[in-house]
Amino acid sequence: MVDSRRSQRGTANLLMKQPADAHERRREICRIAARVFYEKGFAGASMQDIAKAVSLTKAGLYHHIGSKERLLYEIQNYGMDILEETVIRKVRAIADPRKRLEQTIAGHIDLIVRARDWELTVILHENRSLKGALQKKINARKRAYIHFLEETVRQVEQQSGRPALIEPRLAAFAALGMINWLYQWYHGEGRIKQTELAEAFSGFFFRGLLGSE
Amino acid sequence: MVDSRRSQRGTANLLMKQPADAHERRREICRIAARVFYEKGFAGASMQDIAKAVSLTKAGLYHHIGSKERLLYEIQNYGMDILEETVIRKVRAIADPRKRLEQTIAGHIDLIVRARDWELTVILHENRSLKGALQKKINARKRAYIHFLEETVRQVEQQSGRPALIEPRLAAFAALGMINWLYQWYHGEGRIKQTELAEAFSGFFFRGLLGSE
Repeated sequence: MVDSRRSQRGTANLLMKQPADAHERRREICRIAARVFYEKGFAGASMQDIAKAVSLTKAGLYHHIGSKERLLYEIQNYGMDILEETVIRKVRAIADPRKRLEQTIAGHIDLIVRARDWELTVILHENRSLKGALQKKINARKRAYIHFLEETVRQVEQQSGRPALIEPRLAAFAALGMINWLYQWYHGEGRIKQTELAEAFSGFFFRGLLGSE
Repeated sequence: MVDSRRSQRGTANLLMKQPADAHERRREICRIAARVFYEKGFAGASMQDIAKAVSLTKAGLYHHIGSKERLLYEIQNYGMDILEETVIRKVRAIADPRKRLEQTIAGHIDLIVRARDWELTVILHENRSLKGALQKKINARKRAYIHFLEETVRQVEQQSGRPALIEPRLAAFAALGMINWLYQWYHGEGRIKQTELAEAFSGFFFRGLLGSE
């Protein structure tokens, strides 16, 4: 990410045509469209609603994106990009599996808590609306993340030197459920601060995985 | 539930007017409408779609239910009734908090796994679509369940005689996340059987809560 360029960007840039900005312009459209889908539901939001929200004509929006389903795909793909960029990429090279898993959990919690009302809610819950090849592509990315979690859990269990207490796959989905469910109830402004939440969930997860240490 | 009556019921009963069957008829409408909402989304499904699916005229459907929002409320309320009838009512009187919590978790897992594609998915994910007084009523029922879980967790922690390792509220939401997320990935026909899943999640949860015993 080139920060000097980011600082110059604004809604007006949506209408600019420089290829260098094309990537960021698509993301801006995705962020705003995700909000419209969030408010009206995927079926309830029209391309006209979205065009208006991103200050494009309907023809312009179709030119940029192609179709409503393609737009949903772009949003979900962008959601996975964010997971990749802000969580997975930062932890993949960590040699110690326990540390890698801890930082993955903390990073994923941070992502959900920050992005709560936005594209992430859509990516998590509108996956019934994608069909065919686009759905397969998104599901493949989701599966890759699950496998990364599962494999890291397996390594943590092996490192502990004790017999595994739970199947890595089940522990991986337990973590995902705890974390992805946060958007349903957790409000950063409430009594429980994010650092407290992250520590409590991490502690809970590792006790569940390994028992007391 | 009067089983002899249940065995006689069918789609045709939807059109019958006996007051004794009114309750069951509403539930049948809710079950079918939930499937339509599941497939088309709340915004995408019309009252005409639902009337057709339940073999009523649109006027007949409005007569029974009132409005699309009211129908969503009825479905969510029915979902909470099922939770109440099949899980909470059976465990509330269990004196031992540990046993009460174990059976609540097992019952809730069973509920989600059984009802996966249906009204429960809708109740869990369309709660943005309800507004005002109806939303408040559903949220109050959800909150009551959370408080029941939270209070039971607190009693389990006290019973253990050790300092609590996690706030009851956070442990309650960790359990809810693990369980409610199941509909996203768990398929009863897969490699992991339901009893195995329930035991693994229960063990994981109680280790997370109390550490090794």
